[in-house]
Amino acid sequence: MERESADEVAIRKVVETWHRATGDSDVETVLRLIAEDAVFLAPERPPLRGRRSFAQGLTELLKTHTVRSSGEIREVRVSGDLGYCWAELTVTAAPLDGSSPNLHKGPALSIFRKESSGAWVLIRDANMLASDTAELELKVDNLERELMADGPGG
Amino acid sequence: MERESADEVAIRKVVETWHRATGDSDVETVLRLIAEDAVFLAPERPPLRGRRSFAQGLTELLKTHTVRSSGEIREVRVSGDLGYCWAELTVTAAPLDGSSPNLHKGPALSIFRKESSGAWVLIRDANMLASDTAELELKVDNLERELMADGPGG
Repeated sequence: MERESADEVAIRKVVETWHRATGDSDVETVLRLIAEDAVFLAPERPPLRGRRSFAQGLTELLKTHTVRSSGEIREVRVSGDLGYCWAELTVTAAPLDGSSPNLHKGPALSIFRKESSGAWVLIRDANMLASDTAELELKVDNLERELMADGPGG
Repeated sequence: MERESADEVAIRKVVETWHRATGDSDVETVLRLIAEDAVFLAPERPPLRGRRSFAQGLTELLKTHTVRSSGEIREVRVSGDLGYCWAELTVTAAPLDGSSPNLHKGPALSIFRKESSGAWVLIRDANMLASDTAELELKVDNLERELMADGPGG
């Protein structure tokens, strides 16, 4: 593997700070890592546009949940003032009322921009963490079983 | 909107060629747009590594389906030899046996690299097209309705 450039190391630090600050419910620190014009993309919902929208969502979530996120960075590359990071993430949102936590796992592909200050900030994020499909599939299985049991021979 | 650079126009052309060649089942042309070391990311499956793996998957799919893909490019940006494209895609895979086609919609965030030849090729792709969750949800609804109808008062 090639040795990483100072810019690549800087992006890696942004990602690490992101996870730590999220776990600490430290929204202010997370927001400093995001460009004002950032766009967050994910399956099955419209693009979330802007740091402000992201902040609202995160603040709401943290009122009712503790979020733990961790990631294995697979790759960071930079050219000029643009860079990307591919990471495999695990995010757990544990309700504060003690009910069972939601686990999400999967890749994220994030694009960063170097600001005139020299700081790297997130500008585009592709979130591919697995949704609740596994849960839905389990629900289908259980309902089908119930229907079988309720059938003529049940 | 800023005027696009020649490199940004070139990436736009790669994306347009991709859609046209996919619709024409022209795998050779699609493969020329992909770096040998490309990685394809999506929810709920391991990363697909390499042009060769992608080619196998596409060739298999095209044995049994006609694929139509189209996209609205929301943004293309370049810095040095790295660029990205955000597009909102619609992909329809119609089985050759005439059964009902599968529709997938959603964003993709793709990263391109400028080769020493000057050509831009896809190196990383984040596919956020909606899976069959909507279908699963419909199945749950229908099964729940059946269960209700089968209940004591049914």
